[in-house]
Amino acid sequence: MKDNLKQLLQTLRETSPLVHNITNYVVMNYTANALLAVGASPVMAHAVEEVEEMTSIAGALVVNIGTLSAPWVAGMKLAMRQAATLVKPTVLDPVGAGATSYRNQVLAELMEAAAPDLIRGNASEIMALAGLSVQTKGVDSTMSSLSSVEAARALSDRYGCVVSVSGAVDVIVDVDKMAYVANGHPIMTRVTGMGCAASALAGAFCAVEKNVFEAAIAAAATMGVCGELAASTLAASALDGQGRVLPGSFQMAFLDALASLTPEQLAEKANVRLDSKSA
Amino acid sequence: MKDNLKQLLQTLRETSPLVHNITNYVVMNYTANALLAVGASPVMAHAVEEVEEMTSIAGALVVNIGTLSAPWVAGMKLAMRQAATLVKPTVLDPVGAGATSYRNQVLAELMEAAAPDLIRGNASEIMALAGLSVQTKGVDSTMSSLSSVEAARALSDRYGCVVSVSGAVDVIVDVDKMAYVANGHPIMTRVTGMGCAASALAGAFCAVEKNVFEAAIAAAATMGVCGELAASTLAASALDGQGRVLPGSFQMAFLDALASLTPEQLAEKANVRLDSKSA
Amino acid sequence: MKDNLKQLLQTLRETSPLVHNITNYVVMNYTANALLAVGASPVMAHAVEEVEEMTSIAGALVVNIGTLSAPWVAGMKLAMRQAATLVKPTVLDPVGAGATSYRNQVLAELMEAAAPDLIRGNASEIMALAGLSVQTKGVDSTMSSLSSVEAARALSDRYGCVVSVSGAVDVIVDVDKMAYVANGHPIMTRVTGMGCAASALAGAFCAVEKNVFEAAIAAAATMGVCGELAASTLAASALDGQGRVLPGSFQMAFLDALASLTPEQLAEKANVRLDSKSA
Repeated sequence: MKDNLKQLLQTLRETSPLVHNITNYVVMNYTANALLAVGASPVMAHAVEEVEEMTSIAGALVVNIGTLSAPWVAGMKLAMRQAATLVKPTVLDPVGAGATSYRNQVLAELMEAAAPDLIRGNASEIMALAGLSVQTKGVDSTMSSLSSVEAARALSDRYGCVVSVSGAVDVIVDVDKMAYVANGHPIMTRVTGMGCAASALAGAFCAVEKNVFEAAIAAAATMGVCGELAASTLAASALDGQGRVLPGSFQMAFLDALASLTPEQLAEKANVRLDSKSA
Repeated sequence: MKDNLKQLLQTLRETSPLVHNITNYVVMNYTANALLAVGASPVMAHAVEEVEEMTSIAGALVVNIGTLSAPWVAGMKLAMRQAATLVKPTVLDPVGAGATSYRNQVLAELMEAAAPDLIRGNASEIMALAGLSVQTKGVDSTMSSLSSVEAARALSDRYGCVVSVSGAVDVIVDVDKMAYVANGHPIMTRVTGMGCAASALAGAFCAVEKNVFEAAIAAAATMGVCGELAASTLAASALDGQGRVLPGSFQMAFLDALASLTPEQLAEKANVRLDSKSA
Repeated sequence: MKDNLKQLLQTLRETSPLVHNITNYVVMNYTANALLAVGASPVMAHAVEEVEEMTSIAGALVVNIGTLSAPWVAGMKLAMRQAATLVKPTVLDPVGAGATSYRNQVLAELMEAAAPDLIRGNASEIMALAGLSVQTKGVDSTMSSLSSVEAARALSDRYGCVVSVSGAVDVIVDVDKMAYVANGHPIMTRVTGMGCAASALAGAFCAVEKNVFEAAIAAAATMGVCGELAASTLAASALDGQGRVLPGSFQMAFLDALASLTPEQLAEKANVRLDSKSA
């Protein structure tokens, strides 16, 4: 596992895969910068006139419904079908699933159009997507990732895909195996777009690793380890006079960490535990 | 007043209200981060298919016309009517009022759909909204907040709402009272989205304080005090070799300040003067 | 040339021209902040209902097709025709030209609607726009700016406009002359929106300098010199413990550099070479 993480980040850096993002307005800039920082090449395009062509030249497709509307949903469907046809990996980020019936309906339509290879969300979103009735708070989760394991497993079984649930401990579920990634820092919940960046990075790793389970673990570990690195850099600095980890500085330091992270650091600091079933 | 400011920020932090934003593309990321930093929970959704449901689960609605278009205006109207029906507070930010006749027309339609509880803008926008013919420069104000007091009062009378005018001194006008908030730093005019963040924060405070006048004062004071704190942190650092307050660093330091501001600091540093009529 | 650069930045600061941007979602915030930092006044508006009026009050129009869709293209055409009618300078940024046939078709339609005064792109985009069949990688260039000189010249001849190609060395081509600007830092390719900021700054300089060739040189030099200044500030700091130039810090330091750059610094550090034909 350690060797594999090291190898994957190295491959990502060497090949700089093009990742096609159809994502929300709030995080587009940060997502693009996160992909560039880690070594990938982002492109954003959503119009029905061009999404299929853009997906064709990309190594992976990432669909995020954060600020959805009908014209964008049409583009998402076309892109997802094209990715399926060309056997390119698709990551779906069901932002705000359960918050409105429109989101639930669109998610059902997207899954119907073409099942994604990886679904990445927070616990509330994964539970809502699994058909459970959950209390949501807009786009923030109201429960821990560990409480959504059964929902993640149900989703994984139903669609034959990998499901990655972000939280204090990330849970990654495949049809026949599971992993826990225990990296990260609490400040990550106070910066918008960290989850969306996690999905985009998952797309980048899927573009260089056909094993979606391994790619999802690598993305979760990269996010978590960089969160720790960024926080420790800030804690060591005197930027706010007290070395505190604050969200504005963190946002910047996290991009720095994505760019400076070495494959060796990732392998060393990643705290990944595979479930016995996967041994 | 001091005690009230302290209490309001404390309540905001403890309850973390969900604020539904229908805002412009330019500031979405910064607005979301400002709300997260201060302790609120942001959500962005604009599609007619879901705005009513999203407003229903939120504590307040913030509508900002910065990059408006017809589909968004339709969503804004539905959301504002829903907020009015459910007696949830609505903040309207009339970005660029007076710059084009389309903006003026849309603002008239929005006010007609449902009068907001709070209008927050710069002097040019408030004067344009009050029907005065003003010279505007796109989305920037060409005059001081103090010159718009009569316009703010006229608007407040006409719609029975609170009007908050941002400037070197913020002016907050209610039907029967007025307040001046003299906090802030000149660099705030050189960073995009500070006004939009002020409106979003006003939404967050309105979600925890039914008295809209008090909520508007708390938001203006929080913005201004955090501007001062961020500027003094930068001035004390050697980041640019000279301890200057520059806009890139400030943007980040301001989010840090929103997160680190204590209720006691807010109460201590807020420079609020109530007009005698409100005594 | 040196005196002219100094004078142009000084004029930009004194007059703070309003620049009307119809640009992509990814970079809107950064573009607005870059324009504010350098001393200009940004406005963003794309709706067909108001673009003509907004262009009328602006000093320049910047059109960027990064995340295009049909309603936006309609607004771009109206704005470009209006700018042509009012003899206001227009900058076109053909983001991702060649990546999809839709982008190529839209670019042809925009050039048909009204030829821009300046086209600014990377080498891949300029070659695609000149009708050459190029291999593109989404929105990133796959070749050096110097390899696109002939394509730039062909475009300049065909449309009678200035063409600015960004790269390690920027190449600026006018119908009868050429310039090379050799400033900048490699980290600029790892931050999203630097090219888009270059186009926006070109708009700001075009608003204060009728000679589009001179304005394009000033914009390229300002971008490159600020890239160098930001990188050297970071290299001198201990922000990441090692004084490295990393993309998150750079993004912020670049805005700081745009704001702190003096006309004298620009003139001193700009590395501009005019081609003999232009002597």
